[in-house]
Amino acid sequence: MAGSGSGWARAVRGLLLDVSGVLYDSGADGGVPIPGSAEAVRRIKASGLKLQLCTNETQATREKFVRKLRALGFDISVAEVTAPAPAACHLLKERGLRPHLLVHDDLVPEFAEIDQTNPNCVVLGDAAENFTYANLNEAFRLLIGMEKPVLISLGKGRYYKETDGLKLDVGAYMKALEYACDIQAEVVGKPAKTFFESALAELGVPPEQAIMIGDDIVNDVGGAQQCGMRALQVRTGKYRPSDENHPEVKPDAYVNNLAEAVDIILQQL
Amino acid sequence: MAGSGSGWARAVRGLLLDVSGVLYDSGADGGVPIPGSAEAVRRIKASGLKLQLCTNETQATREKFVRKLRALGFDISVAEVTAPAPAACHLLKERGLRPHLLVHDDLVPEFAEIDQTNPNCVVLGDAAENFTYANLNEAFRLLIGMEKPVLISLGKGRYYKETDGLKLDVGAYMKALEYACDIQAEVVGKPAKTFFESALAELGVPPEQAIMIGDDIVNDVGGAQQCGMRALQVRTGKYRPSDENHPEVKPDAYVNNLAEAVDIILQQL
Repeated sequence: MAGSGSGWARAVRGLLLDVSGVLYDSGADGGVPIPGSAEAVRRIKASGLKLQLCTNETQATREKFVRKLRALGFDISVAEVTAPAPAACHLLKERGLRPHLLVHDDLVPEFAEIDQTNPNCVVLGDAAENFTYANLNEAFRLLIGMEKPVLISLGKGRYYKETDGLKLDVGAYMKALEYACDIQAEVVGKPAKTFFESALAELGVPPEQAIMIGDDIVNDVGGAQQCGMRALQVRTGKYRPSDENHPEVKPDAYVNNLAEAVDIILQQL
Repeated sequence: MAGSGSGWARAVRGLLLDVSGVLYDSGADGGVPIPGSAEAVRRIKASGLKLQLCTNETQATREKFVRKLRALGFDISVAEVTAPAPAACHLLKERGLRPHLLVHDDLVPEFAEIDQTNPNCVVLGDAAENFTYANLNEAFRLLIGMEKPVLISLGKGRYYKETDGLKLDVGAYMKALEYACDIQAEVVGKPAKTFFESALAELGVPPEQAIMIGDDIVNDVGGAQQCGMRALQVRTGKYRPSDENHPEVKPDAYVNNLAEAVDIILQQL
């Protein structure tokens, strides 16, 4: 833990949890729960604290994602997940945008109700195997052909860890298209302030009474702190010791894992 | 032409020519010569002016590239081509670097004499169909695993035009890896000053007596001017009318095509 006390754990009414790297380590095999995390989720719920998952997951619909989490032993419902695709749909409707999707096949159903004819923007998610040379050229040509190109990116992560190794995340491909078109993407998902604000609204707790727990020093910790929340970094998932010397972001505390965070928070209730 | 005069054409002893978009339009079908360009190359040589091609082409060895140009009617030899791969080999040897190559299959023979065991850097070219999700993840993992990641990029173009449409160029993929690893690539090729300097050395003419002719406002025109050369932009290839309002780069003149440039230059000899 950073510092000697646990003052950071006082006056908490709700928790926002990142998922990959906090609840489980993802992988092509479905992933592996992080020891103690399923029990920690149960203890949070039993304590009366509010709980919302705040994820940049864009490789599956929320329904499919929740089925996977439940199969791994996590007591989670769809309403307890804030994810970028539904937030993007909200934004597309609000602005009358018709997306060309460069996303994972399993995410496509989230956009079922959105008009996708004659696209006037590109929505980029973690498309994984769909990040082909042909698909990237296609997204690029659509953008460069627009009078005012609109690129909406579901997150801007650099990379993530799967059980078989590190993978480039959506942010890398976002940068490729930004550079080629000389534009700036609009990011939906962490660390965007509006995204944390929707998660807090769904949590039903004001920022000063909520704690974000994540493994990503910039997107989880930095983003949440920008919204006036406290934020912890777990030493699981993509955490690296060098994160503790980050030049700009300092978590309110480090914890070894979610279970330890929950121990300390529940002691302060 | 910009302005009314042709004073920019005086006291010239050698020309550096960009290739794609100046001599021919490239494409999967081998490409199409730009009308008048083959004759223009012959007239340059007949005039006694020195000539060197200065290209960021990295989809073929120089030998193969020259065979293609000759088949299209251009009287060019291998020694008359300055290209990024040989320059990169020089740099790799000088610094004892062992590359992992993410390049086009047809470029691989250029690196035949370079030790590629146990790589301590990544060399990125316009890999085209080799820009797969798996290959990009592999290059990324190698870089992020190095104590001090070294990424050498053969050019940093945003995109180029082939006969079947626009394609993302190596610069877009360079930006993706730069972002994911939080590093800066070293660029070999235009617009790097050292690259223009090697082309001038091969031309055997000092910068103030040389003119660069290209279709890329930044990489050809801007890069050459940074070296103290004059530079023309042709209105062929990837030229777009909006280039004429570029905020930072202003060519010494615009010409409709290479043939027109050569007309004017030969009149001034």
